[in-house]
Order: sequence, then structure tokens, then C-alpha cells
Amino acid sequence: MNQDTICAIATAQGGAIGSIRVSGADAIAITNQIFTPVKVGKRLTDRKPYTLTFGRIYNGDELLDEVLVSLFRAPHSYTGEDSTEITCHGSAYILQQVMQLLIRNGCRMAQPGEFTQRAFLNGKMDLSQAEAVADLIASSSAATHRLAMSQMRGGFSKELANLREQLLNFTSMIELELDFSEEDVEFADRSALRTLADGIEKIIERLVNSFNVGNAIKNGIPVAIIGETNAGKSTLLNVLLNEEKAIVSDIHGTTRDVIEDTINIGGITFRFIDTAGIRDTNDTIENLGIERTFQKLDQAEIVLWMIDATDASSQIKQLSSKILPHCKNKYVILAFNKSDLILEEQKESINSLVSHLAHNHISSIFISAKNRYNTEELQQLLISATHLPTVTQNDVIVSNVRHYHALSRALDAIHRVQQGLDINLSGDLLSQDIRDCIFHLSDIAGEVTNDMILQNIFMKFCIGK
Amino acid sequence: MNQDTICAIATAQGGAIGSIRVSGADAIAITNQIFTPVKVGKRLTDRKPYTLTFGRIYNGDELLDEVLVSLFRAPHSYTGEDSTEITCHGSAYILQQVMQLLIRNGCRMAQPGEFTQRAFLNGKMDLSQAEAVADLIASSSAATHRLAMSQMRGGFSKELANLREQLLNFTSMIELELDFSEEDVEFADRSALRTLADGIEKIIERLVNSFNVGNAIKNGIPVAIIGETNAGKSTLLNVLLNEEKAIVSDIHGTTRDVIEDTINIGGITFRFIDTAGIRDTNDTIENLGIERTFQKLDQAEIVLWMIDATDASSQIKQLSSKILPHCKNKYVILAFNKSDLILEEQKESINSLVSHLAHNHISSIFISAKNRYNTEELQQLLISATHLPTVTQNDVIVSNVRHYHALSRALDAIHRVQQGLDINLSGDLLSQDIRDCIFHLSDIAGEVTNDMILQNIFMKFCIGK
Repeated sequence: MNQDTICAIATAQGGAIGSIRVSGADAIAITNQIFTPVKVGKRLTDRKPYTLTFGRIYNGDELLDEVLVSLFRAPHSYTGEDSTEITCHGSAYILQQVMQLLIRNGCRMAQPGEFTQRAFLNGKMDLSQAEAVADLIASSSAATHRLAMSQMRGGFSKELANLREQLLNFTSMIELELDFSEEDVEFADRSALRTLADGIEKIIERLVNSFNVGNAIKNGIPVAIIGETNAGKSTLLNVLLNEEKAIVSDIHGTTRDVIEDTINIGGITFRFIDTAGIRDTNDTIENLGIERTFQKLDQAEIVLWMIDATDASSQIKQLSSKILPHCKNKYVILAFNKSDLILEEQKESINSLVSHLAHNHISSIFISAKNRYNTEELQQLLISATHLPTVTQNDVIVSNVRHYHALSRALDAIHRVQQGLDINLSGDLLSQDIRDCIFHLSDIAGEVTNDMILQNIFMKFCIGK
Repeated sequence: MNQDTICAIATAQGGAIGSIRVSGADAIAITNQIFTPVKVGKRLTDRKPYTLTFGRIYNGDELLDEVLVSLFRAPHSYTGEDSTEITCHGSAYILQQVMQLLIRNGCRMAQPGEFTQRAFLNGKMDLSQAEAVADLIASSSAATHRLAMSQMRGGFSKELANLREQLLNFTSMIELELDFSEEDVEFADRSALRTLADGIEKIIERLVNSFNVGNAIKNGIPVAIIGETNAGKSTLLNVLLNEEKAIVSDIHGTTRDVIEDTINIGGITFRFIDTAGIRDTNDTIENLGIERTFQKLDQAEIVLWMIDATDASSQIKQLSSKILPHCKNKYVILAFNKSDLILEEQKESINSLVSHLAHNHISSIFISAKNRYNTEELQQLLISATHLPTVTQNDVIVSNVRHYHALSRALDAIHRVQQGLDINLSGDLLSQDIRDCIFHLSDIAGEVTNDMILQNIFMKFCIGK
């Protein structure tokens, strides 16, 4: 493995203080070379672990900054190696200069995620826990934080370890049988094997299915907004975005990545899928656009159909037969916009039309996006349409695409085992599928993961972690 | 004074790690309440100063994060008070939650600059040093860093203390005279007083004058780009900006505030002043615009006159008599743009025209902004036009407007003293002007500064410092 001593700026630019992390065999020696303790004799190389030392960093004759150095010794550090952390004033210039001094004295600039990668390679955490670190840093809500924390604490790892133990148990029974195969004895009771396989299938299936929830929490619940161009789709989106911004800016110091059309409502992230305007038409080209809109509906869990209230009846009559068949198993919300422009009687006739629509999960609401009338109630409707279970830190929820794919492959393998048992397949063939299943589960923990995949995983981390 | 325990996020959002500072009498006790050490018995309240403790922060039953707590005890901390620093994962959610826990347990959210304000109030530094902390954090080049560091290290403070000692010496001589005034004895030798006053004037004058350099380093050397609209002013600006960006982005992790038209060339900051296009016209309204451009020239130290090379002769002939009188004591650079479109002979005739222009400090260069021809040489010309002295950390350079104003007032006072000595003013009147001078110098160190001004100074700091 790479034995360089690495360094990186671990804090974002622009704060009051900045921090540089150094890790590796020479971390303490190199930091010691660029550091002058204020109290004579407090050499870093002599300091105990888990201490702070105050001192100065000079660049030649010039004082660069007064800093605090945190000191850790292997294996009791984040990476499991000797490490230091240099805390200085949060100036881009100072941080860059300290980095250059470290590099001139033998450090190498760390790759993104390299500190966590070292923690993984030094056995401080398994791969799924290491991956959770990036999620934890990116977590911006209670739900995403809970997912990441659960994974980092190793609930998922335990579940996987448990599964692998059962699978190993399974293979040992079958391999015992193989040893005595000439004697034509069946040591492994096939019905007991079947029960074991079914149990394992159940657990993996639950984990695979949890990805729906995990992915919705992490990336947002997909909501397709459809309707005519002039129905007020973008006005509504702006209202939702603005209300969110107003909430967020109340909390001092909060900044958030502006992800277009991803909106946090009541702690739940919604991902709004943009669609072309829909209307009843015979024009071929326009019909193509509408077809594409219908395809996008497939990705949605919730369909928000915006209708101009002043033209609601004809809209419902013309389009419901086209739209609703694409909304099977989806929650449909009809939002009648500009409803301040219509009379109570008109609302009643619209309500009557809605009640005759053939769909299981349908709600309707009269709003005015422009005047912000009932927009908060619409948000409540969106929340109640999500059916997200309440997740605790003890729940094991899969939210990582890599884990999901590995689990799906493990599930395929266990299905092959079940089929093999059904047709009384020989032990050596069964054993191959079981080993395949174990392989995919081990991949999640990083035990069989190859270097290129590892590199890919940690590349997505931020620098300094 | 305010005895609250304060807390603030001290790192910018978006990094791998985040840090929260807590300071005040209850800092350790409050941090201890929200913190569970991993090793039983490592209670924060029992820990020695300058140690790190690893542990967890829970929000009710839920694990919020695994953190490191740095511990400092009064007076050996930045603020001079008991302090902790909680280092956690750099997630906005985690940082906000930890802040809320601290506040629920008795902390108050810190005002901008409040940690440094406390350091000042607790005598850890004088006001000019405290102000340098903000400059140090904002420093983005070797020169701005050097200015801030010199001020933070107290070179300026020592100079002021020295001045005040001399002034006190002065007053004591005069006041001795006053005590014996009835006896009509002149204890204070007027010529000795005059020498002392002249010496003090010299020092204050040097400090006041150093503001030109300090301000140029801190805020950029003002360069006015003038010329016809189609001369290529904005193309050139873009080229300069882009070249700078290319350099900056080589250094990994560097981000910079985009300040329009402020460009760092060779470590020197230039501030480009936008002007309206200039041309020879009889139109009244357009003449008004040109008049405004000429006014802006007053702010400039360097005038960069962009001329379309294909039309250079007529431009020089028509405009030089209008422009050059506004450029007294300024360095003028004539940049002949689009020079790839003219012949060598034309260049020679332009050079001959330039050599006949009546101005002390004039240079000319043939460039092509579009093709980046000679643009680097133009940058060298700009650098050599600055005449900035080389500043070391030992030089005392004033870069703070507040200090500049206080010093200017002190200089006025010492001038009044000199005039008083000239006309043989009585000791009590002289003494008043000397006290006035001392007052303004003390204002810089923060000894007589009132609360509102203090508040104003620290308000401009970032949160967490």
C-alpha cells in the first residue's frame, strides 16, 4: 500500500478558522519541522497523543501564522496512522502557504477521500461504513443524517455479517455432503436447507426493497408536475422554493447547494421532474412531446396535475383518459390553480367531476399559486402522499446504489439456490451459487472489492476527508 | 461586561470537517453536558487544558456525531476565558444541531467578532491587533498577509506606545511649568519642546503617508482604463482576469471572491476603474459623460489609455491634449490594441508621436488583446508602474481607514502644538492640543474607544472569530 504521508485542507474556504490534516508515518515529524512551539521544549515529537500545542509557523523569516496543533498517534486516530491537525486562521493564503511548507517537507497532497480510505485499509471501518462518512458530511436533514449515521454505526455491516454467517453455515453443510458423495448420503437435510435459503432470501429482499425508501430520503421523492404551460407550474415551483428559502435563511449560517427543483418540505425532500406542457392535440410533433412527458411520469411516485381552474371541466374531460392510465400505483394530486377567479358553484361541479375519475389514489385542491392561496395545504397534501415510513437510527435502510446493485445480485444468486433445491441440483452446483451470493455481500463490506472500484468510491469524497 | 457563554460555528460550510467554538465561564460545563466521552471517566470537566477528548454527541436517543473536543482554561485561551472547540463532520445539519444543543444548555449565539472582542476586552491584544485578525483572515496575497501580520504582532502598537510616551513626556514638562506659572519661570525649554514636537510630527506624518501604500496593498492600486468604446477595453480586462483565474485554479482548493475588475498581477492587486468611452465631440450630453470620466481619473494612480492601433495617430492628436492634463503625477500607459493589423512603419510613426507627448511618466506598448499578443508584457508594465515599496513584516504600514483618520487627527493636533510654540502660546493651551493628540493615538489602541465604535469594528468580523 501507499505509505506516503498525506496532507489536505479539511475545512471549506471562507470561515474564521481553517484546518489542515496530516496523516502517515512521518506526520508528526514533518509537522514538527515547520512548527515552532511558543513554550520552549514543547516539541511535537515529544508530545503525548490527544494534546494541543500552541505555536508558530514561519515561512523563512516571516511569521505565517499562530496555530494550534492536535496530535494523534497510531492506531488511535481517524486513519489509524500517526496524524496531526493544524488549526490556523481561515485565510486562503495562509492555508495554501502551510500546505506548501508541508509538501516541501515531504508530504503529498491527499486525494479526495484518502483519509477515510486509509481508515478503511487500516481496518478502522468496513467499506459501507466508510461510504457513510461521505453521506454524513452531505447530510442536510434529520432523515438523511439518520440514514448515514445508521450505516456509519455499522447496523448494516452487522446485518451483512449475520447473512454471510448463515450462508457459510449453508455451504459447510453442503460441502460435508460432497465429501461423502461417493457414499450417496445426504448429510444436508434438503428441507432444512430450503428453510435456510428462504430465510436468507427474505432478509436480502427486505434490504433490496428498503432502497426505495433510502433512495427517496437521499435523493428526494420524484414528483412530476404536469399540465398546460399556462396552468402556473413555474409560479407554483417558485412559491415552494421561496417558502423553503425563507425557512432556511432563518437559521443563521445555513447555506445549501441550490439543486434545481429539489425542495425540502417538512423535512422530506421532493425532486420535481419537469415535463412539457400537455394538451389534447392531433399534431404529430406535439404528440411526440406529450409521449415523452408520459414516459417521465414513469419515474414519478407522485403526479401533480396543475389545471387552470377557469378551464377545469374541459381539461379534465379531454385529458384524464390520457393521463390517468399512466398513473397506476402513483398518487395523483389535482391542483386547480387560479381558483380565486371562479365561483363556489364552479368548484362544486369540478369536485363532482373529480369524484367520478377512475383512480385509486387521488386528491384535489383549489389553489392560487400567485396569491399563495392554499399553497401550504398543497404542501401538506404532498407530505401525506409520500407514505415514507419513520426511520430510526436502528433501522437498516439501503441508500447507496452500489449496495443496492450488490444486494440485487446476491438476491439473484439466492433465487438460483432456491431453484436448485427445487430441482434437486447437486451440491457442488448449489455451492457455486451460494459462494456467488457471499461474494456480492462481501463486496459491500469491501472485502473483495478491487482497487479500481475502491478508487471510484473515494474519488467522490471531498478533499480532506 | 457581558458574561454569557457564547458559541458559534467557526468554519465555513461545505468542508470535510466543521468546528464550533464555545467560550465563557460555563464553556466547559455546557460542553460536558452534551458530550459523552468514549472512554468512561474522561469527563471534560476533569480534563487538563490543551487536551483533546474523543466522544459522542447525542440528541436525545439519537447519535448526532462522533466528535473531538479541544479544551482550554482561562486565561490560556484565545479569548482569555474557559473555552472548548468541538470538531465534527462538516455537515450543515450536524453543526446546526450541535449549536441548538449548546443553546438549549445555556449558551448564546455569538455576535460576529465576539471571540476577538473578548480577547481584546480581556487584555489579550489591543484594538489595532484585534482589527488585524479580521485582515489576516481576509488576506489573500503575500502582501496583504504581511500587512495584517505586522499589525497583529504589534509593531504598530509599539510605535504608538512610543509616541504616547514622548507626548506624555512633553505634557509633563509643560505641566511642571504650569505649577510654577506664578513665578513666571519657563521650566520647559521651548526649543527642546519644538524639537520634540517636530520629531513626533515626523513619525505621525510617516504613518499617515504609509496609508497610501497600505491602502493600495489592501484594496488594490487604482487603474483607470480609458479609451474609445471599441478600443478593446473589456477584451483586455477579460484576458487579464482569465489569465489570473488560470493561475489561481492551479492551486488546488483555492477559491476566491469574485470582485469585479480587481485583478492580482504578480502578487499586486490592481483595482480597475471603469470609465465611459472617450472621444472628441461637441455634443453637450456626451461631453458630460467625458467630464465624469476625467473626474474618475483623479482616483487613479495609473491611467491605461487603450487606443485602436489602426486609428492611433488621429486618436493621439485629437485626445492627448484633453487627457494628459488630467494625468499629472499619474503613470500613463498607452496600449495600442489590434497592433497585429498595422505595419512596422505605422508603429514607428506612432512611436514618434508618443515621444513628443508632454508627460513625465509615460510608456507605450503594442498589444493585441484578442490574440493575447504582448499582454504579459503589459502586465509587467503595470507592475513596474506601481512603485510600491517592498514591505516586510517589520515595517509599520497603516492600512486601516479608522487608524488613518485617527492619525490624521493626531497630526492636526501636533501641527497646532507646533503653531502654538511658534506664537509662544501658554502652556495650558499647548497642553490641551497635546492631550488631544494622545487621545487620538489611544483611540487606535482601543483605550478610549466607546462601545458603539467597538461594536461597529467587530460587527465587520465573521461569525466564529
